[in-house]
Amino acid sequence: MVTIGRVTTTDLHQDHPLVGKHAQALQEAREALAARSYYSRYPESPSPRVYGEHAAAEGKAAYDARLGRPFDLADQPGDGTRVGAEVSPYGPELGVTYPHLDVDAAMTAAQQALPAWRDAGALVRAAALVEGLDRLGVRSFELANAVQHTSGQPFVMAFQAGGPQAQDRGLEAVVTALVEQERIPSSVVWEKPAKREPLRMRKDYRIVPRGVALVVGCNTFPTWNAYPGIFASLATGNPVVVKPHPHATLPLAITVKVLREALAEAGFDPALVQLAAEADGEGLAKVLAERPEVRIIDYTGGPTFGNWLEQAGAAAGKQVYTEKAGVNTIVIDSTDDLLGLLGNLAFSFSLYSGQMCTAPQNVYVPRDGLDTDQGHLGFEEFGSSLAEAIRKFTADDAKAVEVLGATVNPGVRQRAASLAQLAQDAGGRLVLDSRKVEHPSFPDAVVRTPGLVALDVTDSATYTKECFGPVAFLIATDSTDQSLQRLRDTITEHGAMTASVYSTSYPVLEDARDAAADAGVALSENLTGGVFVNQTAAFSDYHGTGANPAANAAYADAAFVAGRFRVITSRRHV
Amino acid sequence: MVTIGRVTTTDLHQDHPLVGKHAQALQEAREALAARSYYSRYPESPSPRVYGEHAAAEGKAAYDARLGRPFDLADQPGDGTRVGAEVSPYGPELGVTYPHLDVDAAMTAAQQALPAWRDAGALVRAAALVEGLDRLGVRSFELANAVQHTSGQPFVMAFQAGGPQAQDRGLEAVVTALVEQERIPSSVVWEKPAKREPLRMRKDYRIVPRGVALVVGCNTFPTWNAYPGIFASLATGNPVVVKPHPHATLPLAITVKVLREALAEAGFDPALVQLAAEADGEGLAKVLAERPEVRIIDYTGGPTFGNWLEQAGAAAGKQVYTEKAGVNTIVIDSTDDLLGLLGNLAFSFSLYSGQMCTAPQNVYVPRDGLDTDQGHLGFEEFGSSLAEAIRKFTADDAKAVEVLGATVNPGVRQRAASLAQLAQDAGGRLVLDSRKVEHPSFPDAVVRTPGLVALDVTDSATYTKECFGPVAFLIATDSTDQSLQRLRDTITEHGAMTASVYSTSYPVLEDARDAAADAGVALSENLTGGVFVNQTAAFSDYHGTGANPAANAAYADAAFVAGRFRVITSRRHV
Repeated sequence: MVTIGRVTTTDLHQDHPLVGKHAQALQEAREALAARSYYSRYPESPSPRVYGEHAAAEGKAAYDARLGRPFDLADQPGDGTRVGAEVSPYGPELGVTYPHLDVDAAMTAAQQALPAWRDAGALVRAAALVEGLDRLGVRSFELANAVQHTSGQPFVMAFQAGGPQAQDRGLEAVVTALVEQERIPSSVVWEKPAKREPLRMRKDYRIVPRGVALVVGCNTFPTWNAYPGIFASLATGNPVVVKPHPHATLPLAITVKVLREALAEAGFDPALVQLAAEADGEGLAKVLAERPEVRIIDYTGGPTFGNWLEQAGAAAGKQVYTEKAGVNTIVIDSTDDLLGLLGNLAFSFSLYSGQMCTAPQNVYVPRDGLDTDQGHLGFEEFGSSLAEAIRKFTADDAKAVEVLGATVNPGVRQRAASLAQLAQDAGGRLVLDSRKVEHPSFPDAVVRTPGLVALDVTDSATYTKECFGPVAFLIATDSTDQSLQRLRDTITEHGAMTASVYSTSYPVLEDARDAAADAGVALSENLTGGVFVNQTAAFSDYHGTGANPAANAAYADAAFVAGRFRVITSRRHV
Repeated sequence: MVTIGRVTTTDLHQDHPLVGKHAQALQEAREALAARSYYSRYPESPSPRVYGEHAAAEGKAAYDARLGRPFDLADQPGDGTRVGAEVSPYGPELGVTYPHLDVDAAMTAAQQALPAWRDAGALVRAAALVEGLDRLGVRSFELANAVQHTSGQPFVMAFQAGGPQAQDRGLEAVVTALVEQERIPSSVVWEKPAKREPLRMRKDYRIVPRGVALVVGCNTFPTWNAYPGIFASLATGNPVVVKPHPHATLPLAITVKVLREALAEAGFDPALVQLAAEADGEGLAKVLAERPEVRIIDYTGGPTFGNWLEQAGAAAGKQVYTEKAGVNTIVIDSTDDLLGLLGNLAFSFSLYSGQMCTAPQNVYVPRDGLDTDQGHLGFEEFGSSLAEAIRKFTADDAKAVEVLGATVNPGVRQRAASLAQLAQDAGGRLVLDSRKVEHPSFPDAVVRTPGLVALDVTDSATYTKECFGPVAFLIATDSTDQSLQRLRDTITEHGAMTASVYSTSYPVLEDARDAAADAGVALSENLTGGVFVNQTAAFSDYHGTGANPAANAAYADAAFVAGRFRVITSRRHV
């Protein structure tokens, strides 16, 4: 419970200079969101023509300057200790340490920051957050290095997904929240006809946040998966405590620092955003999640802790938004562009060695094969063709590492190194082994190409579990009908972030759309060009659906923001 | 999981005749909702000038014709048994029996009804539901009798709250859901600039329901508290199973029957709405809540089962909306209309003998008393004046029963009969005992006037529990500041559906607004006329806030509807 002094806010804040500065950006984003059309505020190309000739070097230098020293967040309420033992999946130790929060003091600081932020109103909050995002935008190269050397992503991906695309998702969350809040009038006069004279009341509607919000980050997408929760909670008035993965703290530490500075300069308490760095195995997320002050939790990570959060959070009346794990699925029926299909899939499997929550895992193919523009292909022929496409795509080590990145943890490495065993245990067949790639610049990096294991549709014990990392299953089915039924059943039971289908048959595509709707998963159809099933675009594609066990929320729909604030009415006769 | 055939729906349904018929009603309701202005489709006056000369008699006759016989819902999948042992709080046994659902078959029937309803689209669903509400509207006198003789409400209240006001809340839910769904475009072309040629994709957004929805009704407001959930779930495409309180089944049985007929005539499967009548103590709500097909639960009732539902529902990924219990609060500081204040409070305490989730319970008054337009009143004088106002208001038995109604259950009766003991146990003082009123027409009805017990602010063990029924606590505090702090603390911890304040001081009113915002409760200020703290108006006042333990949801905001559907995208190059 927050005890709060009175702030007469609208008057104070309505001419806040950031509102004018970012009015156009907010309007463009509102319109893009309503139209679900293409929109991006933060350019995804790391080209010097876009970011400036020296941007890349300066970002690298800024990153390098952070290595081997304490990260400065001295204005946070610390407990006097420091944590941090990040090691780049590319090899080097980062050597950065972070101040450890004093949790009691952090909760108090967050609660004290709340009233003025709440009373500033939705528009001022949105404008201040665009300012914060813009400041992150100019740090995208620094963030890219930090994301690369914590997640293991290849550099360009770390730039795009860790910088501008994360920032666009943050902006999407801000504007989704703004639009939802703008639907509530601040005050109305209500007049009810009555016998003698009408009943007239003035009703004021005050938007209030839930309380302190906790965002639990993940190792593989430290910024991209954290920004929607951070910005949705802030935009709706909730102070945020960011608990990064202990192996991927730096990107969120930079984020928190930049946001604190931006908020302070905008006249708000920097305690609106605090970093809760933790030591490996400390279990700080649970401690924070159980604090009564914490009313909202955004989580990306494994299903065990995610399921606990959902249940314990509900018991304590908290709003919990989770993204966990699933079995992403492709159904292959037929194609009029076999080369496009193979190239597209080879990229999807290879990108960041399949270490994406959106990377495809289960590929259902009729055991009789498929019709293509190059004639009929048997199941085994299709597997060979796909294996060959992956081999070719990853043949040049120096080029391959720029797509594959580095494996993020021992679990992934171990799985990648034992695909033959996996195939044998599952009663399947190794179609393509994962190859260890030498990284020309980082000899300690463990870089892996994707492997393929052929299974039968009956081998469901193997393919109904998430098998995170560089492996996909080619699963022989009796028919495309059965493939679609497996898509339905496995995703309903085990979840998925993505699904796709390849078919030249309109009825099959319609069946696939129905199967996807039943399973509650978004569907990509016949991707053979520059769009990949593992990629979604802010303002247009929802990330996740909230309709299957992989995630209980989507970036970013009304349900993602509407529960983060409440409306308190006061009414009186006039 | 629902396996669904393909229905090409938009084409089928876009010229559905009900869309034209109810277009204006939907547009008016959309506009009222956006403006939060006064709007009512269903007239609350039971006057023959509004409903017709014979409406009251015909409604009574329709009700009487249902008594003492089996209720016909033969087209539902029953298990062959019948349940029902309703006894009117006014005395008579209803003698109605209801077919008991075959739960397995009911789930199958609901799931089979889903696809065509889902694919009809939001607008057709909304229009069909307005048609259903209109048909309930012309049954308001029949429903009034059914509500009166199950809840114990007085007749006019049973008419208003059980008929038109419930229907208006139903319409509010329909339109809140419609507006939220209309924000999602059905299809867009997305074009992303690229080096050679732009990437162009068509993206279709399909709104899909969660699954089967369960609505658990309560004894005191069988229709009013059930309609928001029923109509919000139906409007978002979910088939609904309605589980009424075993003592208040008839109002919802009539509702379900009317809706099934309306839906069938509109071309949909009547299994979209099914009645799950149960025997006393059967525990059918838990059985239904645990069914995997059930994905949404709306519940009104006690906190023990409500808290279990929230927790178990979250664990199973269900959306759960609850209204439970709380300690509604009034803070008295000062007034310039003492008579208006006393009259308003006397009515609020007396209406339905305080058996409303919104009835005030805790009245904080400074122990030094308060300034009024009739001079300063001490704490005890204020208590005496309020007691006298209640005595006068309820002095005439024949008139009083039309406000008090009948006590609904033995717990309420026992409490009302032992206020002196309650006061003694609590270390308080009985200011006004509850009086047993003889009902001129129903000698078996137990009718009770409200009593008042004076407590000290230190007696919190007594006043921090909900004490449902005809008793309020006058609580002496050190100051209005302390009163507001108690409001904050008790509501934050124990919840409340309503709060109000009386003060002539603008700073005190502003403090009260802040306290209400902190506690997450709506505030009424200085009600001295024809608006009462226990009443809220659809389209303008939220019922509940979802921001304190009394309820996790509000009728009806975006959060009440946004989680009932999900959006499934399918995208492809064009």
